Amino acid sequence: MPDGSPVGAALIGGGENEFDRDTVLRRREPGVYDADLSAGWMAGPAMHGGYLLALAGRALTDTLRDPDPFTITAHYLTASRPGPAVLRTEASRPGRAFSSGHALLTQLDDNGAEVHRVRAIATFGDLGQLTDDVRTTAMPPSLPPPENCVNAVKEAPDGFPLPEMLRRLESLLDPSTLGWAMGAPSGRAEVRAWLGFADGRDFDPLGLLMAADALPPTALEMGLDGWFPTVELTVHVRCRPAPGLLRIGVVTRNLAGGMLEEDAEIWDSQDRLVAQSRQLAQIRTAPAS
Amino acid sequence: MPDGSPVGAALIGGGENEFDRDTVLRRREPGVYDADLSAGWMAGPAMHGGYLLALAGRALTDTLRDPDPFTITAHYLTASRPGPAVLRTEASRPGRAFSSGHALLTQLDDNGAEVHRVRAIATFGDLGQLTDDVRTTAMPPSLPPPENCVNAVKEAPDGFPLPEMLRRLESLLDPSTLGWAMGAPSGRAEVRAWLGFADGRDFDPLGLLMAADALPPTALEMGLDGWFPTVELTVHVRCRPAPGLLRIGVVTRNLAGGMLEEDAEIWDSQDRLVAQSRQLAQIRTAPAS
Repeated sequence: MPDGSPVGAALIGGGENEFDRDTVLRRREPGVYDADLSAGWMAGPAMHGGYLLALAGRALTDTLRDPDPFTITAHYLTASRPGPAVLRTEASRPGRAFSSGHALLTQLDDNGAEVHRVRAIATFGDLGQLTDDVRTTAMPPSLPPPENCVNAVKEAPDGFPLPEMLRRLESLLDPSTLGWAMGAPSGRAEVRAWLGFADGRDFDPLGLLMAADALPPTALEMGLDGWFPTVELTVHVRCRPAPGLLRIGVVTRNLAGGMLEEDAEIWDSQDRLVAQSRQLAQIRTAPAS
Repeated sequence: MPDGSPVGAALIGGGENEFDRDTVLRRREPGVYDADLSAGWMAGPAMHGGYLLALAGRALTDTLRDPDPFTITAHYLTASRPGPAVLRTEASRPGRAFSSGHALLTQLDDNGAEVHRVRAIATFGDLGQLTDDVRTTAMPPSLPPPENCVNAVKEAPDGFPLPEMLRRLESLLDPSTLGWAMGAPSGRAEVRAWLGFADGRDFDPLGLLMAADALPPTALEMGLDGWFPTVELTVHVRCRPAPGLLRIGVVTRNLAGGMLEEDAEIWDSQDRLVAQSRQLAQIRTAPAS
């Protein structure tokens, strides 16, 4: 019934905030979604990895019919470009409290051939159904108050090649982890920041997937210069975040073989560790094309 | 040519060591592999998660035609049982130095219906082709010499429900992280051990995938009692391990919502950090069925 079916029913997500509008999907058929990757979420020459992870997460929210990603991993195969993309998903529902699925994001290249961009798997459930026991030795990152941090957009030096996606965010960086921006990297592989959406949207689990990859690369503060594309990113969402700015700390312990890991801990305004993430990134010191 | 095709060509893996023999696959057709899950690798009521990860890794080694998993993530959907299993794989080769793929492990239930057991994605390449630069702040776990550690098999108390897979390993546990076994857990969420194969096999990247899940759960040393099934396990293999025992340290920072993460660092006999892993595990305090 092409004429009788309500158009609105095929839209997944959407709303007035930039992040929701830019991650809206159109369900073409069960398990097949059309997306339009927004140039507003580019990070250098490619689409931002956390944005792509959130898109995969949104598709799986619909496919799996569970609200929250408990754990999701994406592998970034080729650099995604702004414009049309297709997400194909596959579901497993083993009959427990969890569901699980796979998503493949593709685009067409200049010759019209389908290219694999991102592959993801995830386990979903309902964070609201979890027990509220907490035993943690993790501590929120030590950060100066927001007004003493460096606004990544407003205080960027003239001519700085600001990743476009930073304009969608309120990214308030700890000056003590920003030595690289002054030409004096500390050598310590740590970055810390407060993070919000520029338009005031509150964070939800899909927003956390984006946030897990939103800070400057730790490699810069290690004194490396170049481009650090993500090979793989895993996010564990442990709790629905309270409204307000997030605090994020990212550390790297091991650079080897031209790759490094970045571990992020994300805390909400109620001092809860709402997500833990790890990514494996490449070190490309040649200039990005 | 059913009669003319060499039978041996369809076998992936194999050899004289237990781990290789128990992870051998038969390629039925491109991207479809038959496995026979060995009861020797059970961990309690289900197959061991690291063993299953290695099986998925072996299938992808063949599908992707690259030797080494750089990063692999598995989601455990239902408890795998000893006996026949099928792995179906899917590949992406975006034309760079990396390849990437998906693997789904299934078994038949008692009614002959196919059940999804494990879903994995991975990025493969050749660890031998990586640069040998290393900058790390990670330190090998502090462990007493092997002869002062506790042999998990030989020194297990009478009647202790030893996971069967431990008999395939030489697991030498740091007594200072074994309080739980004496009824006096330290409360610190840390476990450390030396690890080898019982039959003297050396570790390779597939062996590391198993090793990432081979130590007792940190939850025991936190004083929890129960079963801690893995929801998701990600392993980054950073380097081919040298021969000899591994040193492994596992820590948990955050228990919340009935789940906890376990971070493992695996070091080889040449003091190199050869793998980093993280898993998300459930806490089930009810007795396992």
